[in-house]
Amino acid sequence: MNFADRVLEMQRKKDSIVILGVDPHLDGKEPGLPTGYTLERFCCEMVEACAASIIAIKPQLAFFEARGVEGMRAFAGILRLARKLELLTIADAKRGDIGPTSAAYATAFLGDGDFGCDAVTVNPYLGSDAIMPFVRLVPQGKGIFALVKTSNPSSGEFQDLATPQGPLWECVARRIHGIGSDFLGECGLSAIGAVIGATYPEHARRARELLPSNLILVPGYGAQGASAIDAVTAARGDGSGVIVNASRSILYAYRGKAGSNPPAAAAAAAEAMRIELNQVRAVS
Amino acid sequence: MNFADRVLEMQRKKDSIVILGVDPHLDGKEPGLPTGYTLERFCCEMVEACAASIIAIKPQLAFFEARGVEGMRAFAGILRLARKLELLTIADAKRGDIGPTSAAYATAFLGDGDFGCDAVTVNPYLGSDAIMPFVRLVPQGKGIFALVKTSNPSSGEFQDLATPQGPLWECVARRIHGIGSDFLGECGLSAIGAVIGATYPEHARRARELLPSNLILVPGYGAQGASAIDAVTAARGDGSGVIVNASRSILYAYRGKAGSNPPAAAAAAAEAMRIELNQVRAVS
Repeated sequence: MNFADRVLEMQRKKDSIVILGVDPHLDGKEPGLPTGYTLERFCCEMVEACAASIIAIKPQLAFFEARGVEGMRAFAGILRLARKLELLTIADAKRGDIGPTSAAYATAFLGDGDFGCDAVTVNPYLGSDAIMPFVRLVPQGKGIFALVKTSNPSSGEFQDLATPQGPLWECVARRIHGIGSDFLGECGLSAIGAVIGATYPEHARRARELLPSNLILVPGYGAQGASAIDAVTAARGDGSGVIVNASRSILYAYRGKAGSNPPAAAAAAAEAMRIELNQVRAVS
Repeated sequence: MNFADRVLEMQRKKDSIVILGVDPHLDGKEPGLPTGYTLERFCCEMVEACAASIIAIKPQLAFFEARGVEGMRAFAGILRLARKLELLTIADAKRGDIGPTSAAYATAFLGDGDFGCDAVTVNPYLGSDAIMPFVRLVPQGKGIFALVKTSNPSSGEFQDLATPQGPLWECVARRIHGIGSDFLGECGLSAIGAVIGATYPEHARRARELLPSNLILVPGYGAQGASAIDAVTAARGDGSGVIVNASRSILYAYRGKAGSNPPAAAAAAAEAMRIELNQVRAVS
């Protein structure tokens, strides 16, 4: 089954376009693990608590790699739980390398091993041959989200550079649309999607023009400052084609609320996000 | 001690600019592990066999991630061996993400944990704020190699796009040079380096103009088709500033040679590469 069809089916079943970003921060300036939690226990409790309101989890590899071998074991454990809960899994890995290396990354994140997910995020800087090894697994029901326009403050530094075909990110968008047009599901959307940061709504509108048949994964909702309306700006006329990620605003929803326990606070935040996004989707 | 000074010191001590790329392919079209070897044993024997001829190892994360938790444990084991052998370690991770996530990647690959190395490769597509969390660890003796111009067939697709400041990759090179100028070692080279593929010698010459004080890591020697002369094109007038990686041509040197055992064949290939690069460095 095409990955886009899998997403749409899940979306209908759960009446949700919410993805839980599993980005367990360590400490320092970012909120860290609550006292008494191991990395794996914290993430698993959060995933389980939010499962009814979300369609997918998007673990961010960095936070597991930062914990070494134990972190990677936790990552594998979280994926096992997500599969049991029938949630889609998106490895937020942002990988991309020369062909044989990208093929190994594709095996890692779209294969049957410990770290195998339903979809993976990829970085386009090396060009198509860094992406094609991932694309070769799409016929097995796998999905790809290529970074096109990111949500960070300096995303414009290179992505907005003017080229004869428009800003760099628009060139990337056109190429992703081209590759994706060979992998349309029955829903009319492609299994090759794009990451478009929600902090730039004008880019979201332009992205939809350039990517009319691509799933768009929108990060930046919540802690990164984008509103629900910003987040669904890239939706198609029928409200489809966009899935929205929140990480810190769900995982750390318990903070500052005396007496609230982390999983219950996360579940409430995920459900509130689901409802809010559905309201703005319906009227947009 | 500044990472560039560490590299130069090692280079003088060993009279070598060779890096061993530890890219243990799995199977399929690429050469895989020899019969009877585990991933960790194969890599460790190769590193130990080549240690006299090389200054650093550059493990490619993809090939370890593709093996799941056990692969990551092997990666950690190889790093421990390399440290014992007093080799520099460069995590070929090509990471890059929004700030807090890049900070976690920096902790993973430049920190004290299981996967901590001396340097890491980073991807510039997200702009400076994806690179700065890595840069913050440079004062601790750590190094960074940013992808600037890669060696794969479609590297030109985005990297060569024309902008008002020249091709995209030249804009990236200028930015990396700018960031790097704050981190010069006593040798006059910066701890912030660049990856410039050796399969495009004309780019190597231009890269040196744009990156006059940056270490350049050159992949593509050997199996990817670049000659020794191509590989040192980006060297400075005194022959410094370039370190050259080979992976498959060393790891799989035993192939097609009846009776040769893998570590001995690798040691011979690494030593031959060291001598060849020194010869062309001397005359270039």
